[in-house]
Amino acid sequence: MFTYERPVRFEDVDAAQIVFFARYLGYCHEAMEAFFHGIPGGYVRLIGERHIGLPAVSVNCSYFAPLSYGDTAVVHVNVTRVGNTSCTFHYEFSRKADGVRIAIVEHVVVATDLKRFHKVPLPEDVRSVLAEHYAPDGASGDA
Amino acid sequence: MFTYERPVRFEDVDAAQIVFFARYLGYCHEAMEAFFHGIPGGYVRLIGERHIGLPAVSVNCSYFAPLSYGDTAVVHVNVTRVGNTSCTFHYEFSRKADGVRIAIVEHVVVATDLKRFHKVPLPEDVRSVLAEHYAPDGASGDA
Amino acid sequence: MFTYERPVRFEDVDAAQIVFFARYLGYCHEAMEAFFHGIPGGYVRLIGERHIGLPAVSVNCSYFAPLSYGDTAVVHVNVTRVGNTSCTFHYEFSRKADGVRIAIVEHVVVATDLKRFHKVPLPEDVRSVLAEHYAPDGASGDA
Amino acid sequence: MFTYERPVRFEDVDAAQIVFFARYLGYCHEAMEAFFHGIPGGYVRLIGERHIGLPAVSVNCSYFAPLSYGDTAVVHVNVTRVGNTSCTFHYEFSRKADGVRIAIVEHVVVATDLKRFHKVPLPEDVRSVLAEHYAPDGASGDA
Repeated sequence: MFTYERPVRFEDVDAAQIVFFARYLGYCHEAMEAFFHGIPGGYVRLIGERHIGLPAVSVNCSYFAPLSYGDTAVVHVNVTRVGNTSCTFHYEFSRKADGVRIAIVEHVVVATDLKRFHKVPLPEDVRSVLAEHYAPDGASGDA
Repeated sequence: MFTYERPVRFEDVDAAQIVFFARYLGYCHEAMEAFFHGIPGGYVRLIGERHIGLPAVSVNCSYFAPLSYGDTAVVHVNVTRVGNTSCTFHYEFSRKADGVRIAIVEHVVVATDLKRFHKVPLPEDVRSVLAEHYAPDGASGDA
Repeated sequence: MFTYERPVRFEDVDAAQIVFFARYLGYCHEAMEAFFHGIPGGYVRLIGERHIGLPAVSVNCSYFAPLSYGDTAVVHVNVTRVGNTSCTFHYEFSRKADGVRIAIVEHVVVATDLKRFHKVPLPEDVRSVLAEHYAPDGASGDA
Repeated sequence: MFTYERPVRFEDVDAAQIVFFARYLGYCHEAMEAFFHGIPGGYVRLIGERHIGLPAVSVNCSYFAPLSYGDTAVVHVNVTRVGNTSCTFHYEFSRKADGVRIAIVEHVVVATDLKRFHKVPLPEDVRSVLAEHYAPDGASGDA
């Protein structure tokens, strides 16, 4: 399991004064970028020099409780599936102050040649990092 | 069916040069805000004066093809379920220039008293607009 | 003078419940993109095919009154200076409902070869559109 | 002087593949929020419980070189002026990898009662933190 902490920022809330539902996906992407610090050059080099990206093919989010300005989200990241070209990330959000469960996001990505936009096998170094955090049942048993 | 058009803006793309996956939810919310122009004062007054919001409890997105800067998304909105306190929106994204199917988003919201953050019945005027666009099979039969 | 209208969106406000100060620059950029609809292929083709962009070299903003969710900004755009490689846009924001003056932004951009990131002369078609909206004193006399 | 580091994120760039000019102000605000960790409850409590905010009344930005995905911005924050109700922050951006100067932002804020939206004296604890980082000439002598 990989853990990422993210304070809610002043501009992350919406007119209902809670974190805008789309921003959770931004938090997930930040967590995934941090997750890939273990490959040479990280996600930055994967995208910029190797021209391989991991665009989403599907995302499922369940929201249980809101986050507000001043909260910090703790995001637990697991890999629940690794295929030939795609894999599934599982993110569990809780509120740092009291551990309240905030949201779960499942995020399926496909390794993609960004120049021609077609799928390619997951690179070996990516696959290694995925394997390190492989937990087929996720943290909550809903793989 | 309600239709919303949204040009991709300069700042909507990411470092892979396609619309960032989280922004689709922003586009959905814009479409939903436009959808509610039919209630008195729109979504603005619902939130600001009536203190009732429609936060998401779940979101499912499938991404089929990317959007780039210069594309315009056409978003077809249907209501696929109306319950006592919650309802489901179904958004189909296509690319305006060539009709290519881009994404589908299912968005379940719950009418919520924003002061106490607990669920309330869907207000009558909200329910009326939902009924106008009710299509239990969605545009693609996957309600 | 070119005019652009922009409703404040649900996600544009911050934890103080007013439009986040950075978003005004996003509104300006949208207005500038709309401003350039008059050149062939618009700003999209300028960037994407001609590889010429107009990055900012300076921005000066004065904020007089806040915008809230539910407001619509009316943005008047003038060109107050045109040089060989750079030009200055002047944006005046007012609130549509009552005409209250909201903000003024001066935005100096430099025509830039995006592949090598060095400045180039303003292309002729860009220069023509700039000339159409040239008003050296701005709308408020502070060029 | 207060220092804040901020890696450029995947979604921070625009269609010209550089950090969108508006996002610098977001980075400044993050730096300012971090700057105020020294007051009880930080900026969060100032806004949320004390109902005092520091909205911008003016912002001046000069951009010297672009930031790209993969860069980290180092932001040096100084306070160049403290008045009765307002103060001026001075932010110098450089690129962490090579120290190249990226941008300077001057940011004038006014202490504001967020309920009535009128100016109020800077609170004492705010004033103390400002005093700690007071450098009338900024880091680059252009106060």
